Amino acid sequence: MQPRRNIGGAGLTLLSYAVEVCVENGAKTMALALPEKFNVALIQMSCGSEPADNLAKAIDRIADAARQGAHVVCLPELFQTQYFCQREDAVLFDLAEPIPGEASRTLGEAARKNKVVLIASLFEKRAPGLYHNTAAVFESDGSLRGLYRKMHIPDDPLYYEKFYFTPGDLGFRAFDTSAGKLGTLVCWDQWYPEGARLTALQGASILFYPTAIGWHPDEKAEFGAAQHDAWRTIQRAHAIANGVYVAVVNRVGLETGNIRGNSAPGKGLEFWGGSFFCDPFGRVLAEGSYDKEEILVGEVDLKHLEDTRRNWPFLRDRRIDSYAPITSRMLDGK
Amino acid sequence: MQPRRNIGGAGLTLLSYAVEVCVENGAKTMALALPEKFNVALIQMSCGSEPADNLAKAIDRIADAARQGAHVVCLPELFQTQYFCQREDAVLFDLAEPIPGEASRTLGEAARKNKVVLIASLFEKRAPGLYHNTAAVFESDGSLRGLYRKMHIPDDPLYYEKFYFTPGDLGFRAFDTSAGKLGTLVCWDQWYPEGARLTALQGASILFYPTAIGWHPDEKAEFGAAQHDAWRTIQRAHAIANGVYVAVVNRVGLETGNIRGNSAPGKGLEFWGGSFFCDPFGRVLAEGSYDKEEILVGEVDLKHLEDTRRNWPFLRDRRIDSYAPITSRMLDGK
Repeated sequence: MQPRRNIGGAGLTLLSYAVEVCVENGAKTMALALPEKFNVALIQMSCGSEPADNLAKAIDRIADAARQGAHVVCLPELFQTQYFCQREDAVLFDLAEPIPGEASRTLGEAARKNKVVLIASLFEKRAPGLYHNTAAVFESDGSLRGLYRKMHIPDDPLYYEKFYFTPGDLGFRAFDTSAGKLGTLVCWDQWYPEGARLTALQGASILFYPTAIGWHPDEKAEFGAAQHDAWRTIQRAHAIANGVYVAVVNRVGLETGNIRGNSAPGKGLEFWGGSFFCDPFGRVLAEGSYDKEEILVGEVDLKHLEDTRRNWPFLRDRRIDSYAPITSRMLDGK
Repeated sequence: MQPRRNIGGAGLTLLSYAVEVCVENGAKTMALALPEKFNVALIQMSCGSEPADNLAKAIDRIADAARQGAHVVCLPELFQTQYFCQREDAVLFDLAEPIPGEASRTLGEAARKNKVVLIASLFEKRAPGLYHNTAAVFESDGSLRGLYRKMHIPDDPLYYEKFYFTPGDLGFRAFDTSAGKLGTLVCWDQWYPEGARLTALQGASILFYPTAIGWHPDEKAEFGAAQHDAWRTIQRAHAIANGVYVAVVNRVGLETGNIRGNSAPGKGLEFWGGSFFCDPFGRVLAEGSYDKEEILVGEVDLKHLEDTRRNWPFLRDRRIDSYAPITSRMLDGK
C-alpha cells in the first residue's frame, strides 16, 4: 500500500536517445529508443482580441519552453482566440480552419524548429457545417502525428459549446511520439473518469488536458473556491486511478469573448489559470497562479510511474467482467 | 458551471414520513414517501482482540448514533475483529459466519431497536471454502435488505485479502431502503471509478465505503501524507464525477491482527481513521481525526444533490457510445 520511492525534483533532464539495432524477421532496422525521462511544459497564457497575436505569442512561448528544456509542450484550449463560446454567433465559425491548414502548418513548423512534441488545441473545420474542438499532436520533426476530437461537449451559461462543436468521433486516443505514448483530452473531458481510463489503458504515461475554465464574476466569492477545488481534485484522481502523470493547461484573464472588437454582453468569464502537473499518485509537482502567464516545466519519469503502479497495483484488480453496464445512461431499468 | 446553492450545516433534521395514497392499476396502495433529507452516521472505531467485545462496542455506537439523530449508520470494514489479513492462516476462516447468522441477527436487532438503516461489513461464510468480504444492509425494521460482496480484492504486504476473500459475484449495488437508494462499496473498491459510477447509476444518493486502511509504521514518515491524501482525493472525486454524497468509514489504532492473543509478527498497521463525509461536489462536510474513535453525523439533502447536478450536468454528457472498451484489461492490441 505504499509507493516506496519518492519523486525527485522536477528539474531539467538532458534527453538521451540511444540508437538501437533491432533485428526483426531477419532484417536489421534502426530504432530510436524512447526516453525514460522527459520534460513537459505547460503554457499558461492569456488571450487577446487579435487571433494572429495569440498565435504569435504561443509560438514565442513554445521557443521559451524549449529553452527551458521541454521536450513536450502543451498549449491551452483554443488559445488562438478569446473564448468565443460565450455567445452563439454563426459568424464565429469563420474562426475555424481545416487541419492541415495555415495554423497547423505554423504550429508544426514551431515544433520542428524547437524540436519539441507539441499539443495544440484548434477549432477544426472538417466540412461545411461540421466543426470540432480538436487537439492536434505534432511530432518534433514538424509532422502532424494525429488528432483528438473533444468527446464530451459542455453547454452551460457562457460555455455554449454544443452550438459550435460536434462531439468527437475518433474515440479516446494516446499517440506514439518520440516521447512515448501521450494521451490527449480536452477540458470538459476532465470530469469523466471513463475518458481518462480509456486513454491511460492505451499506454499513455501522461494525460494532457488543454482547458478553458473560469469563474462567473458574480459567483466567484460564493462558489469559486469549491469550483476550483473540485476541478483540481477530479483530475488528480485520474492520475491516481490510472497511475499516470496529468498535465492540465488553462488560460488566464478576464475575457468577454472579444474577437476583433466584438464581444459578448455581460461580465465575462475570469479564467482561473491554476495549470498543474501531477505525478502518478496525484502529487502536484508544479502549479500555476490564478492570474499570471507562466510556463510550468515538469519531469515525466517512467521509472517512477512503474514504481507507483507496482506499489499501488490498481490495474491488476480491475473487474473487467463487471464493467459492461457503464455504457448505460442510467441503470434504472428504463 | 456553478452550484448556485450552498450546502447548509450538517445539523440534525427530524425525518418526516408522509403517508401517501397511490393508485396503481386501479388498486389503492399505501406507500411511504421517502425523505428529502436524512442523517447518516459514520462510526470510526478501534478494534480489540476479542471479537465479542468489538461487536458489543459497535452495538453501543449504533445506539449513540441514533441518539444523535442518525437514520442511516455505517460501521467500518470487518469491525468485529482486528484486521486479520495481516497474516495468511487457514484457522482464521473460523471467524467467518453465514448471513443470516448470529452476528447478522444481532446487528439486525440493533437496527430495529434503534430504528436505523445499518450498513455492516461482515466476513461471510458462503460455503465450505468459499468466503466473501460482504457489506450487509439492514432495514430499520431489522430485516436484511441485501448483500454487497466486495468486488475488488487487494493483495499487498500485510493486506493479504486474496487469500481470504473470493471476489464478489453480485456486481455493484444500490439498495432501496426507507432512506432511499443507498450504494455500498468496500475499501479497495474506492480506487476504482468504475465501481462508483456503476453504483451511482443505479440511483444511489450516497456511496458508503466501509474501510480498513492504514500506514506501515516504517513508511509513514516518508509516504504517509501522500497516501492519505491520494485516498481522500480519489473518493472525493467519486462524489464529484457522479453527483453523489460519499461516506468513508475507517477504523483507527495500531493493530497486529491480534485475535484472542494470536498476532501477526512485525510492526503491524496504523489504521489512519480520517473517516469523512462529502457532498455531491466533493466538499468535505465532516471529517474524523487520525487516531480517535468518533461518530460523524452528516446530512444528505436530495435538493442539494439535484441542484449540484443541474449546475454541473456531468451525467447529461457521458459518451456511452464510446465506453465499451472499458471492459478491456489494456488497450494494447494484445
